[in-house]
Amino acid sequence: MYRVDLNSDLGESFGRYTLGMDDRVIPLISSANVACGYHASDPVVMEKTLALAEKAGVRVGAHPGFPDLMGFGRRNMNVTPEEAKAYVLYQLGALYGFCRARGVTMQHVKPHGALYNMAAGDYDLARAICQGIREFDRDLIVLALSGGELVRAAEDLGLPVAREVFADRAYEEDGTLVDRRKKGAMITDEDEAISRVVRMVKEKKVKAITGKDIPIEADSVCVHGDGEKALAFVEKIRQVFAEEGIRICSLQEMR
Amino acid sequence: MYRVDLNSDLGESFGRYTLGMDDRVIPLISSANVACGYHASDPVVMEKTLALAEKAGVRVGAHPGFPDLMGFGRRNMNVTPEEAKAYVLYQLGALYGFCRARGVTMQHVKPHGALYNMAAGDYDLARAICQGIREFDRDLIVLALSGGELVRAAEDLGLPVAREVFADRAYEEDGTLVDRRKKGAMITDEDEAISRVVRMVKEKKVKAITGKDIPIEADSVCVHGDGEKALAFVEKIRQVFAEEGIRICSLQEMR
Amino acid sequence: MYRVDLNSDLGESFGRYTLGMDDRVIPLISSANVACGYHASDPVVMEKTLALAEKAGVRVGAHPGFPDLMGFGRRNMNVTPEEAKAYVLYQLGALYGFCRARGVTMQHVKPHGALYNMAAGDYDLARAICQGIREFDRDLIVLALSGGELVRAAEDLGLPVAREVFADRAYEEDGTLVDRRKKGAMITDEDEAISRVVRMVKEKKVKAITGKDIPIEADSVCVHGDGEKALAFVEKIRQVFAEEGIRICSLQEMR
Amino acid sequence: MYRVDLNSDLGESFGRYTLGMDDRVIPLISSANVACGYHASDPVVMEKTLALAEKAGVRVGAHPGFPDLMGFGRRNMNVTPEEAKAYVLYQLGALYGFCRARGVTMQHVKPHGALYNMAAGDYDLARAICQGIREFDRDLIVLALSGGELVRAAEDLGLPVAREVFADRAYEEDGTLVDRRKKGAMITDEDEAISRVVRMVKEKKVKAITGKDIPIEADSVCVHGDGEKALAFVEKIRQVFAEEGIRICSLQEMR
Repeated sequence: MYRVDLNSDLGESFGRYTLGMDDRVIPLISSANVACGYHASDPVVMEKTLALAEKAGVRVGAHPGFPDLMGFGRRNMNVTPEEAKAYVLYQLGALYGFCRARGVTMQHVKPHGALYNMAAGDYDLARAICQGIREFDRDLIVLALSGGELVRAAEDLGLPVAREVFADRAYEEDGTLVDRRKKGAMITDEDEAISRVVRMVKEKKVKAITGKDIPIEADSVCVHGDGEKALAFVEKIRQVFAEEGIRICSLQEMR
Repeated sequence: MYRVDLNSDLGESFGRYTLGMDDRVIPLISSANVACGYHASDPVVMEKTLALAEKAGVRVGAHPGFPDLMGFGRRNMNVTPEEAKAYVLYQLGALYGFCRARGVTMQHVKPHGALYNMAAGDYDLARAICQGIREFDRDLIVLALSGGELVRAAEDLGLPVAREVFADRAYEEDGTLVDRRKKGAMITDEDEAISRVVRMVKEKKVKAITGKDIPIEADSVCVHGDGEKALAFVEKIRQVFAEEGIRICSLQEMR
Repeated sequence: MYRVDLNSDLGESFGRYTLGMDDRVIPLISSANVACGYHASDPVVMEKTLALAEKAGVRVGAHPGFPDLMGFGRRNMNVTPEEAKAYVLYQLGALYGFCRARGVTMQHVKPHGALYNMAAGDYDLARAICQGIREFDRDLIVLALSGGELVRAAEDLGLPVAREVFADRAYEEDGTLVDRRKKGAMITDEDEAISRVVRMVKEKKVKAITGKDIPIEADSVCVHGDGEKALAFVEKIRQVFAEEGIRICSLQEMR
Repeated sequence: MYRVDLNSDLGESFGRYTLGMDDRVIPLISSANVACGYHASDPVVMEKTLALAEKAGVRVGAHPGFPDLMGFGRRNMNVTPEEAKAYVLYQLGALYGFCRARGVTMQHVKPHGALYNMAAGDYDLARAICQGIREFDRDLIVLALSGGELVRAAEDLGLPVAREVFADRAYEEDGTLVDRRKKGAMITDEDEAISRVVRMVKEKKVKAITGKDIPIEADSVCVHGDGEKALAFVEKIRQVFAEEGIRICSLQEMR
């Protein structure tokens, strides 16, 4: 029996601004990455998001980002490792406040946007993030780009790790994601995208953009809930997984 | 033997900006109210403040405020009780992140500035704040204006309470603080200020601005650390307390 | 021939967050109130909004608000008159940057949300806002609640004023808006709402919530563009205005 | 007769936080770079800073930075050129609001911190900044690192340029500043620092860190006002300039 987690970024509304169809995507996933008020979200949104996740029985994790609301945490910022660690601790704690109020256990941590991408390629930054996580709770699962530096840093610090893959992104031969600005970076054909994920889960292989097969570990697949098309895709991936004998389960269950 | 807590607002620096002489006031107090990133502070400052407090063996509490960095949390904002509760949970959690990383126990919660003042006079707001605190940890001591609505709300919700008095402020007959804009609102003579506090602690009485004696409960005295003069005042109050047989001890010890 | 201005709040998106259907409402109005980065908007949004307004030939004005992005500028904040004046100058200037870059003339200023409401009832605050406006450009038209303190302050300082009415709000006998929390505060029947506005424009009268007719000046009507229903209402009001011989023209043309 | 401008970053306080001794450094300089509310400052501070500068008869310029108050605009952020241009326009306009209110002419623009440094090495970013400046006012002088890309971009767009040098920084052979983390990056001996500047102004040469003389253009020298030591240094540099026949005059006068 094959198993995989479906994760999605949630709770990214802010004040008067609504983003994503959280109530509709939550029932379709197994792990929710909850924004913590830096790149998105605010305390009222966090409370509502936790309520939604708890009601749906979906496991929650922290989704800390850069302090860049204007850029939605998607712009690289050259913070120091000390700053990165402190930003992670702050956001973990903030989300924990709402978890504790509800008696919900925090399952994992997945850095957001530019912090995620930078950590995948920068060991010092990745290690600082993991130190923050470990000081808070060494049972938190680090959800990180399969093959990236954040996986390595988490392993070095003895933290549980889950490796994330992307259905709609092409891979280089070294296992890194192809830069979005490069031709062929996005897998636009839905069937192809899903077949690739199925193969990653079952065969632990994916065809790199060069055409060569490379090994890959897929514990979790990232899906989106920000539109009808995205939701339809999640429904489809769930259906194919069922047909292929791949069971969707949370990161916690997979350990 | 009389006992009283000395509390002070700490960790209110932000990024490049330094405020207060935290390293010098910390050894003189028994309870530190640590800013949580809304009205002041940032994650790096919070980490440093916790380190200072831990080193000095001073008990720490959360000092949540309004999301108004530009106004230092000193401007009334008509937030809803739902918002107030969520803001408190967020900030409690955020500070808890750093406490947990160090194995430091959070002792108390004292709202900051306008949130403190509004809560002293608005039961609904006070109750919302206490609900946030209680959902997080019902052993946290609520540090609130002696005689105010926050004391009442905390008691109604079964939370431990400590009543705070001010050495440098005059009181109305009903126990509320005299508005700063009113003549005589500030007690500018240091000796008089200290005598008043000593009497509040030992006799549980203070002379209101009208000249009439009123009853008052003094579990904790608020002192400042933002200048040489403020520090000298703290030294002086400590000396007089020693002479008067008043022992300074943290809120935790007093329970 | 009767004339009236149709104004709408625009450019209230922020970073990754989209709000309102600006491209669709702009062609239907005569004056656009453009958010300035405090309660909403950011520089990239402001640039796009100016481009839309210029293309549609719609007059633009500044829509300054409180520094409260999390509350969308809708929460009362007790800023000092000095702060209010400085906040207005800052935001006027910021929008002017984009106007000047395009050679677009700024027509008016309409405070946003809580700043608008507070200024309608607080002469000192209203006067401070007008002082900021006057120091920047004494030809800017102040768009303010008909009958409110901001109208009075603008007149006292010699600034041109346009009086705004609301189609969907009930009025008290003294000309103030009925508090939203009060029963009957909102005019929910669209035909009734439009008839009321037509009467305000043509007869300068409106029926107060008490049933009594009161005098009212209506230079501009506020409409919304944040949904299909709102847009349909604007279309309808335009049609009735055409039938009633009321010409829609900008504040500038009305002077 | 040799001439040079002395510039300093001013108005970097924020809300409750005070930074720099603006009132003392202003009389010693000829051009003030005024923070615009992104990396530092707020509207009340901007108003006060303009008042100080006007009283002292010192020319003012805009000092726009990244939207990163927590990092004081000192952290690289990979914004797009479109974003950079809009951020500059916003901040120029905001400062202009206060200039216009006082009838003060804006003389120049000097990007702050990381924006300054990145623009010195990135032509596309530099050009975007200059486009924003040019769209606002093509007479604004761009104050930029001597020899950097911002000088080149300003020249390409036909904007007046002033080249800035640093007394306390070592130079590489290609005219760029030596990375602060490198040994010898800072010129710590005050007399040596001043001699270097004198030579840059009079001989248009400086000794690079390698020991080789390189050509350099020095229209303006950056000085600091954030402490007694910094102020004493400015006094000293002024005295040596007087002895050496170097007249301090604003950028405007030098054109």
